This record gives sequence, C-alpha cells and structure tokens, in this order.
Amino acid sequence: MSANNDSGDISRHKNTNLSGADQAGDGATVSTSADSHVEKPLFSNMSFEELRQANEQFIKERNWHQFHSPRNVLFAMVGEVGELAEIFQWKGEVSEGLPELSPAEREHVGQEVSDILIYLLDFATRCKIDLPAAVVRKMAANAKKYPVDKAYGKANKYTDYQ
Amino acid sequence: MSANNDSGDISRHKNTNLSGADQAGDGATVSTSADSHVEKPLFSNMSFEELRQANEQFIKERNWHQFHSPRNVLFAMVGEVGELAEIFQWKGEVSEGLPELSPAEREHVGQEVSDILIYLLDFATRCKIDLPAAVVRKMAANAKKYPVDKAYGKANKYTDYQ
Repeated sequence: MSANNDSGDISRHKNTNLSGADQAGDGATVSTSADSHVEKPLFSNMSFEELRQANEQFIKERNWHQFHSPRNVLFAMVGEVGELAEIFQWKGEVSEGLPELSPAEREHVGQEVSDILIYLLDFATRCKIDLPAAVVRKMAANAKKYPVDKAYGKANKYTDYQ
Repeated sequence: MSANNDSGDISRHKNTNLSGADQAGDGATVSTSADSHVEKPLFSNMSFEELRQANEQFIKERNWHQFHSPRNVLFAMVGEVGELAEIFQWKGEVSEGLPELSPAEREHVGQEVSDILIYLLDFATRCKIDLPAAVVRKMAANAKKYPVDKAYGKANKYTDYQ
C-alpha cells in the first residue's frame, strides 16, 4: 500500500451507513442528531480497508499467510490484549489522556492498541467478515437495546430495559 | 453522524502515511511493492474517525461518558474478547471464512469483533491517542523488526533475528 494511491480502489467500495437505518430495516438509527460532530477530530485520516490492505501486503511479503489461521490470529490478538492490560495493572484509576503515565508509557499504550487493531482486522479478514458493515449492524442493534430515554445516565445492562 | 456528510470534517485531517517512511526516518517501509493491492476489497468504506465520532455521539446521547474511564473501557474490551474466544473454544481449528460455523455463529463472530473494535476506538479516545498515526508508527517498527529477507516463511519472534 503506497501513500500515493490510497484513494484508489478503495473509493469503489459500497458506502456503509452509520445511521444504521437500512441495515436495521426499521428506521433505527445510531445517531439522529443534526449536530453530527461531537468534538474535533482526534484520528488521522485512514480507512479500515487501507489498513487491512497494508497488513495483507505485510503478511504476503513475508509468506506468513500459512500461519494466519483464524484461531492463530485470535490467540495473537488475545496476547496483545494481555500486553495492554499489563501496562495498567498496578496503576489504579487513570484519567482521560493518561497524564499519570510517562510519555514512554503512553507511546507503549499506542503500540499495544495498534497491535490489537492490526490483529483484529487480520482476524476479520481470515473470517471473511466485512467489519465496517458488521459494525454498522451492531451499532443499530445497540441503539435498540439501549434507547436514549431508558438508558440515559445509567450503566445498567440492556436486559434491565426489556 | 449522518450517512450524508461522512466526507465532511474528516477530510480535513492530516493524512497518515502507510508506507511509514517519514515516521521511521530511515526509509523503512511497510510495503514497497508497486502492485499495492493484494486482493479485492473486503471491507465497506469507512474511516476510523467516522466510527469514532459515531460512537462518541452514541455515548454522549446517553450521558455515558461518566462511565467511560480508560480502565473501565479497557475492562469492557477484555470482556468482549472473552465473548469472541468463547465462540471458538471447543471448535478445533477452523478454516478461512469459517465454513465450519453456522450462519448464525458467523454473524455472532461479526458482532463480537464489532464490539471489540468499538471499545478499542473508545479506549484510544479516552487515552487521547491518534490511533491511525500510532498504527503507522507500529507497522514501520514491525517492518524493521521483521525484515523480509530474514522473516520470509518463518514464524520466529523478532528477537531471533537480532
């Protein structure tokens, strides 16, 4: 994946619909607010498919697909989750932005979160799951399980609202 | 997040560079192949920031930010990883595309992978980490740890190549 053609084939994809209306088939929406932007952007611009393709290329160049069975990749991801948890294990509660951590520790957090993300997209690829489409369906389902009027300000499980 | 303005503010972001060259500062690249596309696209079009914003809106509408401390969100993600692992726990090895699973089980896998992804972006947000930028740095580091000439066809840990 070259940085120079990252708007190439990817633009041909069908668009996902984060409102979830079509997927749910019942008008359920993830968000109905006219003011769609909660806060300023935090993430640099990258699509899920861009990262997926870059990682597939990385694996292919090393002839590693032979090792990437679904369960092998899942175990790899579980291992990375453990490495992330390890950073936080003796910290007590930490604040937004992790001011209690050193710059090196914060960089380490970013590395472990990256490893989890890479393996998660790898796993979806091995399972042949269109992850953005699955996320749209799941968010529409979550919106139905947690209606704003019932769930506002409460941390209950959805079964309490049924 | 409306489906109709998903090319809005997000286009203002700085672009990430999946070649990793600038980040590593030494010409290391994630991929140097002229044929940048390994396979046909699997994922629908969605950016990391789009999903992040949609989930922030979901949380805000329910007044749930009070519950989303970094460690709370990390525990939520760990829980979802456990739910995904549970689907595979007694299956033995499974094949690419999960033909051994029922359609309902495959949909369940997509739901759990989605939950992990949502919490992973939530966690990065709580940590104020630019996740796509962190991924670019990590992939550049991985390319240096696993040079193609040494790692080709081998599953060794990078320390074996040092």
